[in-house]
Amino acid sequence: MTVNDIVQQPGIWLEAEGNLADIVISSRIRLARNVVGYPFLSRATHDQRRALAGLLAERVPHAASSAKSSYIDLTHCDELDCQVLVERQLISRQLVEAKGARGVVVSDDQRCSVMINEEDHLRMHMIRGGMQLSNLWAELNQLDDRIESQVDYIFHPRFGYLTACPTNVGTGIRVSVMLHLPALKLTGEMERVLKAAKDMNLAVRGLFGEGTEATGDFFQVSNQVTIGRSEKEIVDEFKDQVVPRIVEYERLARQALLDEKPRAVDDRVFRSYGILQNARTISSEETLLHLSHLRLGVHIGRITDVSVPKLNELFLITQPAHLQKLNGGPISGEERSAIRADLIRRKLAER
Amino acid sequence: MTVNDIVQQPGIWLEAEGNLADIVISSRIRLARNVVGYPFLSRATHDQRRALAGLLAERVPHAASSAKSSYIDLTHCDELDCQVLVERQLISRQLVEAKGARGVVVSDDQRCSVMINEEDHLRMHMIRGGMQLSNLWAELNQLDDRIESQVDYIFHPRFGYLTACPTNVGTGIRVSVMLHLPALKLTGEMERVLKAAKDMNLAVRGLFGEGTEATGDFFQVSNQVTIGRSEKEIVDEFKDQVVPRIVEYERLARQALLDEKPRAVDDRVFRSYGILQNARTISSEETLLHLSHLRLGVHIGRITDVSVPKLNELFLITQPAHLQKLNGGPISGEERSAIRADLIRRKLAER
Repeated sequence: MTVNDIVQQPGIWLEAEGNLADIVISSRIRLARNVVGYPFLSRATHDQRRALAGLLAERVPHAASSAKSSYIDLTHCDELDCQVLVERQLISRQLVEAKGARGVVVSDDQRCSVMINEEDHLRMHMIRGGMQLSNLWAELNQLDDRIESQVDYIFHPRFGYLTACPTNVGTGIRVSVMLHLPALKLTGEMERVLKAAKDMNLAVRGLFGEGTEATGDFFQVSNQVTIGRSEKEIVDEFKDQVVPRIVEYERLARQALLDEKPRAVDDRVFRSYGILQNARTISSEETLLHLSHLRLGVHIGRITDVSVPKLNELFLITQPAHLQKLNGGPISGEERSAIRADLIRRKLAER
Repeated sequence: MTVNDIVQQPGIWLEAEGNLADIVISSRIRLARNVVGYPFLSRATHDQRRALAGLLAERVPHAASSAKSSYIDLTHCDELDCQVLVERQLISRQLVEAKGARGVVVSDDQRCSVMINEEDHLRMHMIRGGMQLSNLWAELNQLDDRIESQVDYIFHPRFGYLTACPTNVGTGIRVSVMLHLPALKLTGEMERVLKAAKDMNLAVRGLFGEGTEATGDFFQVSNQVTIGRSEKEIVDEFKDQVVPRIVEYERLARQALLDEKPRAVDDRVFRSYGILQNARTISSEETLLHLSHLRLGVHIGRITDVSVPKLNELFLITQPAHLQKLNGGPISGEERSAIRADLIRRKLAER
């Protein structure tokens, strides 16, 4: 499977499963692992990196998934293809910007990706639309075992898995969910949530990474502590306490808005819908803003003629790299905004 | 006829006559006159004002128009009714804010209004939708003669008609047109037009009077010189040279925009249309902005399902006082914005 194949397949991104899917956009778990016999990457030579990438590119695909999977070599991947993989959350920006031999193994269903030579030797992820942490952990745990049957992990009897950065030592796990919190943002309560999250040792980032919390209504919430507790305990706490609590806050804020300012909510929702249906040129940032309001409108039952899968598709394909790939290659910003506006109008007019 | 009758009748405001009506919203001519035997108002006593108002309120209606006309006493007119008359351009803000006996004679067809005890004893106006200066001047000239048959005007053999402010001495005429100049505004050429207008001794004001040129796309252009030439010369110069020249500039700017930035124009036009069709709360200022874009879209043929009379009606009835009067009385700003948005959506949905 190539990036061209990936871009044509919206894959898991159109799903909206689980009973919290009105607010939880996607669930994601990753494990960080390193391989015995190779230094951490910050200390590895060019040749060591290459040897390691070669080894893992051969062994990981066999283990990666029950589905077929492919290795994509990032040293031979152009910027646009890399950006598509980032927009799909199959790889990190950090992997794109790294030097030397590196790549990613992606399963055909795009639920599983294993980055090779990012910050650690291996960073394996499972991702699903909606709220799916239990399933994800079961799958990822099996993947971890299968890969471990192919390579030896660096493991310390007292600390657990060793990692390039000490914040990942122990389980090497990061559990994260992408949440849509427009009502908390609107009511100004997001600050309180951010503070509470910090007290609970959670990291909250905006859609575009650290420091982007202020822009947009989408937030990536993840654990920060990886040591001293089992993976299952971390996942369960996240699934049973952290996420339901934030979701509950957002739902209360939505209800309060609907009770107290129904017209202001409608105004925001319908204006965004009207702009998306009418704009002739629109940036990806503005698109995201209006899609967020539209999504809110759909979930509170004010907009009834747009489906959640259509919304999800629009989120995906209006991103800059997706838009360019789907239209044949690099396109200037201005033309891109025009193509984006036309695409959105066409998609919203489809019934 | 009362203000309640006036508010129910859109009157001349729905017209869009003449071959420049894509850009000339309305034409208007006024004459300033004062009556022999009474001092200018700045020096008149309370009793003199009252006596004068009594005299004119009796004599002017008979002369005012071939149509029936009525005297509206502004000393007994509440703020909302006064504001309706201002929004209809039947009276000036200055007349509302003046003290003592004052009023306005309005013809039933609303084409003619004669303010009594504004800055001068008499300020008679004729107004029509579209470009109608020749007709207006013929009508206003007759009206002037008819009123003069009822009262003696203060006239100086050398200077002409004397007026409270020296800028009106001579003919006492002010010719003005309301122009819609969105393309000149968009292309940044409005500054040049304003400068040229100044060189031609024209006054250019924004829709809401002096100092509001920067907000909005509507401009009131009027003559400043009232002495040394006949009324007809002033009207003819305005009609044959001033207005056609500005209209030509605006048309060139529209064509240039359509040639060079068709998508940017469409974006502006259709976004405004989308917002008007979807907003649930909207201020009068924002309404005016979007109606301006919508009007541009209609006149350049990009919007085909909105008629000019409908646009004109929306301009009229979304103004604050009209909106309140049409909805039964004083309404708070927030509720007004809600009612305005609902009204616009309903009107635009009518076919």
